[in-house]
Amino acid sequence: MVKIGIVGGTGYTGVELLRILASHPAADVRAITSRGDAGTRVIDMFASLRGKYDRLAFTAPDATDLTACDVVFFATPHGVAMAQARALVAAGVKIIDLAADFRIKDPALFEQWYKLPHACPDLLAEAVYGLPEFHRDAIRKARIVGNPGCYPTSIQLGFVPLLEAGIVDARHLIADCKSGASGAGRKAEVGLLLAEASDNFKAYGMAGHRHHPETVQELVRHSKTPVELVFTPHLLPMIRGIHSTLYARLTRTDVDLQALFAARYAGEPFVDVMPPGSTPDTRSVRASNVARLAVHRPGNGDTVTVLVVEDNLVKGAAGQAVQNMNLMFGLPETAGLTTAPVLP
Amino acid sequence: MVKIGIVGGTGYTGVELLRILASHPAADVRAITSRGDAGTRVIDMFASLRGKYDRLAFTAPDATDLTACDVVFFATPHGVAMAQARALVAAGVKIIDLAADFRIKDPALFEQWYKLPHACPDLLAEAVYGLPEFHRDAIRKARIVGNPGCYPTSIQLGFVPLLEAGIVDARHLIADCKSGASGAGRKAEVGLLLAEASDNFKAYGMAGHRHHPETVQELVRHSKTPVELVFTPHLLPMIRGIHSTLYARLTRTDVDLQALFAARYAGEPFVDVMPPGSTPDTRSVRASNVARLAVHRPGNGDTVTVLVVEDNLVKGAAGQAVQNMNLMFGLPETAGLTTAPVLP
Amino acid sequence: MVKIGIVGGTGYTGVELLRILASHPAADVRAITSRGDAGTRVIDMFASLRGKYDRLAFTAPDATDLTACDVVFFATPHGVAMAQARALVAAGVKIIDLAADFRIKDPALFEQWYKLPHACPDLLAEAVYGLPEFHRDAIRKARIVGNPGCYPTSIQLGFVPLLEAGIVDARHLIADCKSGASGAGRKAEVGLLLAEASDNFKAYGMAGHRHHPETVQELVRHSKTPVELVFTPHLLPMIRGIHSTLYARLTRTDVDLQALFAARYAGEPFVDVMPPGSTPDTRSVRASNVARLAVHRPGNGDTVTVLVVEDNLVKGAAGQAVQNMNLMFGLPETAGLTTAPVLP
Amino acid sequence: MVKIGIVGGTGYTGVELLRILASHPAADVRAITSRGDAGTRVIDMFASLRGKYDRLAFTAPDATDLTACDVVFFATPHGVAMAQARALVAAGVKIIDLAADFRIKDPALFEQWYKLPHACPDLLAEAVYGLPEFHRDAIRKARIVGNPGCYPTSIQLGFVPLLEAGIVDARHLIADCKSGASGAGRKAEVGLLLAEASDNFKAYGMAGHRHHPETVQELVRHSKTPVELVFTPHLLPMIRGIHSTLYARLTRTDVDLQALFAARYAGEPFVDVMPPGSTPDTRSVRASNVARLAVHRPGNGDTVTVLVVEDNLVKGAAGQAVQNMNLMFGLPETAGLTTAPVLP
Repeated sequence: MVKIGIVGGTGYTGVELLRILASHPAADVRAITSRGDAGTRVIDMFASLRGKYDRLAFTAPDATDLTACDVVFFATPHGVAMAQARALVAAGVKIIDLAADFRIKDPALFEQWYKLPHACPDLLAEAVYGLPEFHRDAIRKARIVGNPGCYPTSIQLGFVPLLEAGIVDARHLIADCKSGASGAGRKAEVGLLLAEASDNFKAYGMAGHRHHPETVQELVRHSKTPVELVFTPHLLPMIRGIHSTLYARLTRTDVDLQALFAARYAGEPFVDVMPPGSTPDTRSVRASNVARLAVHRPGNGDTVTVLVVEDNLVKGAAGQAVQNMNLMFGLPETAGLTTAPVLP
Repeated sequence: MVKIGIVGGTGYTGVELLRILASHPAADVRAITSRGDAGTRVIDMFASLRGKYDRLAFTAPDATDLTACDVVFFATPHGVAMAQARALVAAGVKIIDLAADFRIKDPALFEQWYKLPHACPDLLAEAVYGLPEFHRDAIRKARIVGNPGCYPTSIQLGFVPLLEAGIVDARHLIADCKSGASGAGRKAEVGLLLAEASDNFKAYGMAGHRHHPETVQELVRHSKTPVELVFTPHLLPMIRGIHSTLYARLTRTDVDLQALFAARYAGEPFVDVMPPGSTPDTRSVRASNVARLAVHRPGNGDTVTVLVVEDNLVKGAAGQAVQNMNLMFGLPETAGLTTAPVLP
Repeated sequence: MVKIGIVGGTGYTGVELLRILASHPAADVRAITSRGDAGTRVIDMFASLRGKYDRLAFTAPDATDLTACDVVFFATPHGVAMAQARALVAAGVKIIDLAADFRIKDPALFEQWYKLPHACPDLLAEAVYGLPEFHRDAIRKARIVGNPGCYPTSIQLGFVPLLEAGIVDARHLIADCKSGASGAGRKAEVGLLLAEASDNFKAYGMAGHRHHPETVQELVRHSKTPVELVFTPHLLPMIRGIHSTLYARLTRTDVDLQALFAARYAGEPFVDVMPPGSTPDTRSVRASNVARLAVHRPGNGDTVTVLVVEDNLVKGAAGQAVQNMNLMFGLPETAGLTTAPVLP
Repeated sequence: MVKIGIVGGTGYTGVELLRILASHPAADVRAITSRGDAGTRVIDMFASLRGKYDRLAFTAPDATDLTACDVVFFATPHGVAMAQARALVAAGVKIIDLAADFRIKDPALFEQWYKLPHACPDLLAEAVYGLPEFHRDAIRKARIVGNPGCYPTSIQLGFVPLLEAGIVDARHLIADCKSGASGAGRKAEVGLLLAEASDNFKAYGMAGHRHHPETVQELVRHSKTPVELVFTPHLLPMIRGIHSTLYARLTRTDVDLQALFAARYAGEPFVDVMPPGSTPDTRSVRASNVARLAVHRPGNGDTVTVLVVEDNLVKGAAGQAVQNMNLMFGLPETAGLTTAPVLP
């Protein structure tokens, strides 16, 4: 059994980790911390977990020794993981950060977007970007994994095969992305109220979204050329699910795009390349770690459109984190992640 | 033109007042106050009102002289209206309070439920309960109107004809009520987030809801006998609309219930007694001041079931407030309240 | 492994059975029939099941030999199971009918409500009503199980402890029930369109709902006295979930209701009696076989209010059917039913 | 008063016309036809209209003489208006077709997309495309108006100023559009059920949407150069509202885009160019004829992003039709279209 600690377990990624780990054959959740809710039983905050974690309570971060854990998940705001990473790593504890502390490799770029100097640039340097489909081997050996953002996961899954193949204009990529409201976190904001956000749709973050630099960094890795990305996030009137509609200009139109994607993701347990003509819907991956995608070339023109869906809390957050844990501990990669999506 | 002031215009009842008054033929909104948003233009908070109130901005309460208004609406939390009532009334300004300060006649009962001593029991004594279908003449002459709560409006419309007729057991009334999330107000609470409250349904307020004493007070007025009411409010995963399902035990089963209700509300512009067998839906009154109701006697037994729908922000709040204003100023009762409900 | 056949697998209970059985350790789905969609692969109708049933296709009922199965689930409209039951039972195949053919014991009453004469009254007589919490032993030995309706399950779970204890007036029970739209099935009807049923709420079935006679039949079993039930179903603007708000008049008020329910359901894996004061929400059981309930006595009066939530497709249909299968085949009762509810 | 006939009034555009016309100062709805619902009172189908059209009933098309009307709206499937146009025009009746019969100028292109030969190419030639912001004068004089599609309206409002100015690459336009479910019409289809389409998001029509040729035809008019458009429609889990996110490559980056749009739409009562940095939300135009748009240049790069919102049933259908009627009959252009959007 893997002894697990969770730092900051009162948000949506925290409760989703708990949900997934409750069915994981090798998970033993030992501790879960919360500054604001120390002393509260997990099941008193999340009734859905009654019968699953009846003896687990949130503890104060300062009063919790996580060094006895094998792995610690950080389901916190940005800045928390990097403050605790050195001590944990020194104690031999592996770290999976669901926030952004270990995603952006350039500390200056990190500071520009997150308004914090990075606390441990050396650990940042060794941290692995936790998108298993592209970095599986490195994740297996990693002490620290920076779990990707929800939007970046979907954008990379859709664009990387095209960039690797060198068949699109990497300077003019467009990601028109739509996310369910849980992506904004479990925080009390007027704009996220049901009475504001339901029966409504809007773009946001037009001045620059924090997932932009992370995404570009990774796309460049695969492209080997400069990348320019127009990224438009939108807020969907629903709870879970991301749909990224990706557009790129083809520099060659003689490539079988369907075959390209099928080959790239052959054997991947969590990436489903759908048949030609498909339009994946977000519910087809609800509560599941699978991402589904479909490739289109509208009107046989020179634009390729890739449709990618994922559950932002699973493949876009907690599920991918567990997938990373499985790799880091030599478990079957799909352990705890095999239940079918919930439809309808 | 009626010169209008609105105190506390940043919540849902405030913006709904503005929406309705924008089409009112005799309304002239002169001032709108907000402690937290003074200086902000109304249209910068509510883009829906662009083109309607382009020159109106929120002003600080202390810096706003409302005595030049003919009427002031209080779309505030409880306690604000009673603090300002005396000065306004002295200046000849009429008051319509959309909060609870002037609903409950017994100051001790008010204090028990709202944890505030009443600031002006004498004005409370003269205030009129603003449910026009039952108190039209008194409202016409009132200086202060306590606008009813959203739930109480629907419950009274459904129970009063039965209580007046003396054909139900007033000691065993049940009101199973369901409200859209806008009824909880425009306040940042985790439980009201789309990600929490959509695709979900629950009861709340089981330990006692503040609309209970107000409702019982009014039902007793019509019943002339003691009333006991079990009231269960529930939160619906939608924005607007209240559906009250009312149950009472018939003490006589030889009365034509349909005819009773039809007669009671004959000529009422805002109460629609639907044909026998109807099941009114909340969308049939969306954004409208109409309440619709249907009377049933399931299995021809001794229980009468009344189904009542209203838009909680209109007939349950701002629309009824405007209806009251129309009465108080000798305007046609339906002025500004005639647009058809929005369906679908 | 239990060899399983599913008749009529294109509706919501069918796909939900498939979803649950995909994670069941002892389930082997051998055949699934559909008159209208024979030849279609399951994954081409339900993309959510890609990777789970890639080789399973719907077959024509007439061309499908189900006698090699150990059990056949009927996820069909009423009337189908009873037509095929005799042949299957003769072949030693057990039957779990998710429709109503084997719920109502009185063939005349069945015919009155379903407008069909019963095809096999003898088998009806031996069929067991599949609510394990009340009929566990009989289910273990049954050849035919009539799986309860979604509403009746929730109503019985809430009322039975009170009726068994003989502390409520069984002639005046009220069940105010609210169901998500999936309860109406996967059928193309205007009234169930998103554009009609979302942001909306209404009662329906006031003239008599087919779940009424089934519920009364069962309540009488526990009450030993005549039962009269006012049952008001409502349509919630959401996908899954039933919330039943149950009211009964207490004939004794000296009983500890919380203790009564706690004792009645002690050890039950799928009934969660919540702490005093709780208001269970439907999402706390989303996609799970658990029902949660809370008992209240508003204002310490003589009315008891029981709040019951379940997922109408799981404990209200497919999950309960699998629970029954587990019992019928000597498997652990919770097999395949242990994943945590999906929240948010 | 304008004497009005409506053909095919049982769909969403039909009931929306009725809703708007109920408050129109010069509208007199004389007849409304429906093949399937002849004899049904309008208020028995749409309870929201009780009190507005109590004496109006659907009549059979064949039994209804529309020649006494001043104008006839066709809220029908494609093919109906063109079949009746000649007789009505001959009788001096003006026609506003909300379907596609009079939108596409090239009869061959019409036939290619709608699988019907055009019934009256001469009338098609004289028909005016009813987008008042671009064709106001022609509409005033028109006998036949082809009311634009919902998507095309939003796409044109966003792209035309850029194309007129000649500052974008017209061969590479992208319209990523999202529509509420009412855009699909009031028809019973499984894919549009609440249980399917809510809490879900997907693209559709990737093989070619009928609004594509209409949109390109109109964009070319303004561009004077060939236009290629990638158009991706998506289905939003909500009732009303379209959000079009438009992308174009700038061929010049020295133009003040905000000023360009502000100048183009100066004085337009129904197009609101929002301040720089805005992200219009669909609810800000709910139930209103206003379209709002915002212009962005992400990262100051060479892509312009235009965000356009409209209510698909109002500016995208019935409201624009009434706006056209107002122009055709010399009424104030805003008559009947002045109520504020419904928010929340």
